[in-house]
Amino acid sequence: MEISVRFNLLLLLGTVSQSESNDCQQTFPQDIYAGLREITSSLVQLKADMTLLQRETKEQAAQQKTEVDKLNQKLQVRQVAFSASLLAGESATIGPFPSHTTLIYKHVPTNIGNAYNSNTGVFTAPVRGAYHFEWHFAGEKNRGSAGWLVKNSQKVFAVYEQQATGFLGVSNGLTLLLEVGDVVFVRLAASSVAFDNFNHHTTFSGHLLFPM
Amino acid sequence: MEISVRFNLLLLLGTVSQSESNDCQQTFPQDIYAGLREITSSLVQLKADMTLLQRETKEQAAQQKTEVDKLNQKLQVRQVAFSASLLAGESATIGPFPSHTTLIYKHVPTNIGNAYNSNTGVFTAPVRGAYHFEWHFAGEKNRGSAGWLVKNSQKVFAVYEQQATGFLGVSNGLTLLLEVGDVVFVRLAASSVAFDNFNHHTTFSGHLLFPM
Amino acid sequence: MEISVRFNLLLLLGTVSQSESNDCQQTFPQDIYAGLREITSSLVQLKADMTLLQRETKEQAAQQKTEVDKLNQKLQVRQVAFSASLLAGESATIGPFPSHTTLIYKHVPTNIGNAYNSNTGVFTAPVRGAYHFEWHFAGEKNRGSAGWLVKNSQKVFAVYEQQATGFLGVSNGLTLLLEVGDVVFVRLAASSVAFDNFNHHTTFSGHLLFPM
Repeated sequence: MEISVRFNLLLLLGTVSQSESNDCQQTFPQDIYAGLREITSSLVQLKADMTLLQRETKEQAAQQKTEVDKLNQKLQVRQVAFSASLLAGESATIGPFPSHTTLIYKHVPTNIGNAYNSNTGVFTAPVRGAYHFEWHFAGEKNRGSAGWLVKNSQKVFAVYEQQATGFLGVSNGLTLLLEVGDVVFVRLAASSVAFDNFNHHTTFSGHLLFPM
Repeated sequence: MEISVRFNLLLLLGTVSQSESNDCQQTFPQDIYAGLREITSSLVQLKADMTLLQRETKEQAAQQKTEVDKLNQKLQVRQVAFSASLLAGESATIGPFPSHTTLIYKHVPTNIGNAYNSNTGVFTAPVRGAYHFEWHFAGEKNRGSAGWLVKNSQKVFAVYEQQATGFLGVSNGLTLLLEVGDVVFVRLAASSVAFDNFNHHTTFSGHLLFPM
Repeated sequence: MEISVRFNLLLLLGTVSQSESNDCQQTFPQDIYAGLREITSSLVQLKADMTLLQRETKEQAAQQKTEVDKLNQKLQVRQVAFSASLLAGESATIGPFPSHTTLIYKHVPTNIGNAYNSNTGVFTAPVRGAYHFEWHFAGEKNRGSAGWLVKNSQKVFAVYEQQATGFLGVSNGLTLLLEVGDVVFVRLAASSVAFDNFNHHTTFSGHLLFPM
């Protein structure tokens, strides 16, 4: 039904109602039945429009919820961050070992998302994304301190320091694209050492920058 | 009103209109009044449906605005980041002091969100969340340089370096979950020093990773 | 049309229909025409309401899509992060050069968003925002290793280390607010050196914290 049809109907009813009392049987029934049919047709159309719009509105609300949930999920999923130091409080030098050895950082002040495992020293990526890692080594005089950040079985970047006297530290850091389940840890080089005590010098931290 | 009722009405009107002119008084008034009642009932229902749907649509628009505002707020709230170095341009060694002393980093190239206070050296968390901090010390030969990152009154991680000759630097960094109002700063250990000059070696930086 | 009018119409039709068969010509045509006019007027109003609501619903869906797209865009735009080390595998000392020299980090395990150029060593900001950078130097005994992070032509923060013997590393990091097109790179100081080999000690990393 069109707007013009509706106005025609109004005009028709307006006009006919002026002359209705003159001739009951012949004039108005035709008009009335025609009017009723038009009205009924309009109603059917409106009812259909209403049903459609109700469904659209409902679908729109559902879609809105889905989109907002997805966005919140994207923001929520970023909540992965850990920081750990080698020893929980005692003062000790770890190593030297005859072969390369994964460092297990025992003191874990931060582990949002529980992606770092303090029993194994291994971080496991919970979602695909870009992750930032940093590791800081404190050495012991007269011994080298060397270590790599390892992604799965691949050495990525390294730290190394060696001095005959005194005390020092060395650091590195980087961003890696990880797939779900990729593991990242720090490996102490064979024959080298890492020192830590209650001050927490030798540390390993990582966090998700963004999922991909 | 049901769809089937509407179709019955249409059929009725269609049928009756063929025979309407034969008997005005007895046949069509009943049909017409019944038709009008049905139509009116339909209209009342449609009107109610319309009012309901108008309200739902309005509520849905309001809710959409609320959700989008909340998401934008979540993204906006992340804008907290600062970086500072110890001295604004002069070359100087800070310390040694007889007791542990908060370092006040004076040169502040970045302070988005103004959470770092260059008069006190203290960062105050504006929202609950995970924050990343890093601090880098440049030392002076023959003197130790040691310092802790402190959260409220608790030492978290440390840096330490000491060499008889030459020049060196040491760094640490980590992520902390902070409550609103938690303070974080760097404390120089008693008897130790930190060096800085116009090159900006001794620095302190932090930023919000994500609110929680 | 008001709710009250509709109920009046219903009552009227209900009442009249009781007496309709008594007097066809004089009683019911007036009622019927009045009823039809009211119904038609109601229909016109409902039709207008429906058209308006259909448009509103459509606009609301379009706006929802726009807002969700904008939010996704804000999340998407954050995907900028690179990490590079100086040499692709060979062991070499870069420098000393007679003047300050931009370091070109050749080994690029991560370059999400392609904002770092491994031919020039230069990172170019793709969007206005806060960016975090860090750079780590490995030195060579008996030679100083000094370098600045440079934003456009301005030195920002520095690293420096020098020892007569042994091996060491030094790091710095910070956050900068960059405009679109701002460039950031690491400049090796004149007469100083940086060492790297297949272990990747001397590195440069950066990532977008948030757009602004």
